[in-house]
Amino acid sequence: MNTTTPEFERVAASLARQGMMQPLGVRLLRAERGLVELVMPYSDKVTQQQGGFHGGAMGALADIAGGYAGLTVLPEDAEIVTVEYKINFLASLQGGEVRAIGRVTKGGKRIIVTTAEVVHIDEHGKQTPCAVMQQTLVPVPKTY
Amino acid sequence: MNTTTPEFERVAASLARQGMMQPLGVRLLRAERGLVELVMPYSDKVTQQQGGFHGGAMGALADIAGGYAGLTVLPEDAEIVTVEYKINFLASLQGGEVRAIGRVTKGGKRIIVTTAEVVHIDEHGKQTPCAVMQQTLVPVPKTY
Amino acid sequence: MNTTTPEFERVAASLARQGMMQPLGVRLLRAERGLVELVMPYSDKVTQQQGGFHGGAMGALADIAGGYAGLTVLPEDAEIVTVEYKINFLASLQGGEVRAIGRVTKGGKRIIVTTAEVVHIDEHGKQTPCAVMQQTLVPVPKTY
Amino acid sequence: MNTTTPEFERVAASLARQGMMQPLGVRLLRAERGLVELVMPYSDKVTQQQGGFHGGAMGALADIAGGYAGLTVLPEDAEIVTVEYKINFLASLQGGEVRAIGRVTKGGKRIIVTTAEVVHIDEHGKQTPCAVMQQTLVPVPKTY
Repeated sequence: MNTTTPEFERVAASLARQGMMQPLGVRLLRAERGLVELVMPYSDKVTQQQGGFHGGAMGALADIAGGYAGLTVLPEDAEIVTVEYKINFLASLQGGEVRAIGRVTKGGKRIIVTTAEVVHIDEHGKQTPCAVMQQTLVPVPKTY
Repeated sequence: MNTTTPEFERVAASLARQGMMQPLGVRLLRAERGLVELVMPYSDKVTQQQGGFHGGAMGALADIAGGYAGLTVLPEDAEIVTVEYKINFLASLQGGEVRAIGRVTKGGKRIIVTTAEVVHIDEHGKQTPCAVMQQTLVPVPKTY
Repeated sequence: MNTTTPEFERVAASLARQGMMQPLGVRLLRAERGLVELVMPYSDKVTQQQGGFHGGAMGALADIAGGYAGLTVLPEDAEIVTVEYKINFLASLQGGEVRAIGRVTKGGKRIIVTTAEVVHIDEHGKQTPCAVMQQTLVPVPKTY
Repeated sequence: MNTTTPEFERVAASLARQGMMQPLGVRLLRAERGLVELVMPYSDKVTQQQGGFHGGAMGALADIAGGYAGLTVLPEDAEIVTVEYKINFLASLQGGEVRAIGRVTKGGKRIIVTTAEVVHIDEHGKQTPCAVMQQTLVPVPKTY
């Protein structure tokens, strides 16, 4: 984990402003140009009715992983808005944590396309793919 | 609001088991065969970096509105799993609440397709469409 | 069928330029502000390996139904580009024809969201839903 | 190009039955377990109103690239059906050809998830990404 890159500082500052990500326990692991990795630990605030990670929680994590990946390719005075995303769920596990890696597929002035993958990591380090997302973003002027 | 329908009891019982929906403050408003309506009030647990409702929160709400609409057309011994969804975001507002209405587009033994719309309602009752979703579900045996 | 509306003329002129739609036999049925209906007859140029309407053919039809619905809400000097779409297939039938109705869900200066439904109509007029689509468009300057 | 693999024979046999792919000029380039590559040459049967490759043609190509990738991981007595797909368009070029590579992201007994990428190749071999797709498939019994 390298907390000294400009991308890391920028994404971390934005993430700290996201009220929703505090109860979910989401933390930033990595931010480079075109790539962002986030982690969300298992807790009773991220579960669905069968006790596994909630699709909504994994969807929210994938959404911001892709969104922040998009942010890293924009100038400093720009913000990013999610136009839409599509997510497939592959598994829902309990315990451990899930990580989402967002990647820019195509940057552009008007439209940015990203993908994200969500992987579960259990207490022994075993990894299981849980979700894959494809997303469309647009840049907007930063207003704060 | 009619809390006496069998669909309402069934969805409410499942919703109470979703850990994630407690901090988000999600409540069930309506459940009929093929239609479910949920509400999520504005709070600091549902916001993005600009203070509006988080896309991840609206996505999670739409996901379960569609999922529970699908549940209402299944036999009692069945549960529902989200295969995937796609959501477009139209607006992100502050204050008030958002409601999601999920509807079954096509029921089936193997695959159920639903849509959901998310609408913001401000303190004066003004409604603004915020998101539209299209979703694929599969029935699975209930294990709890 | 009303061929005298300005929307009909505009969409028909654009459709005539689409090389792909000629072998598929696609014709314009209806064009109003925010709504376009197209028809594609069954033939050996639109089939998949089991003899039913090809998902690719229904997808292409839904794509342009949504896209042209978006075009009808734009000024005359603008063209429309499909950013992305998501389509669920509900059935694939043989014979008769399929019709696609595209509708604007939300118009905007930068982003337009539409939906389309594809319905099969057999020789006796029986209708069967075959696909539902959700789509994102952007306006661009017309260059021809 | 290796036409001797069992996967190649199987996919080629199915492709030959797809009426729609004949006028589009689609040919199979490669088929391995979990991966299929197809090509579609530029012609007046694959164009949109501005003369570039039609999104509907690229969508159809991506759809079957993903679908056939899914087929290669199924037993011989099974067929594949597309439940849904989502496709982002990145560019639309003229001339040359487009190739689509479909890959299985996750195989399963009930649900298969794939991705496909569509790339344009011009007369000089220059490659330009044109579309990315994410898709859900289900196996069904083969009936022919």
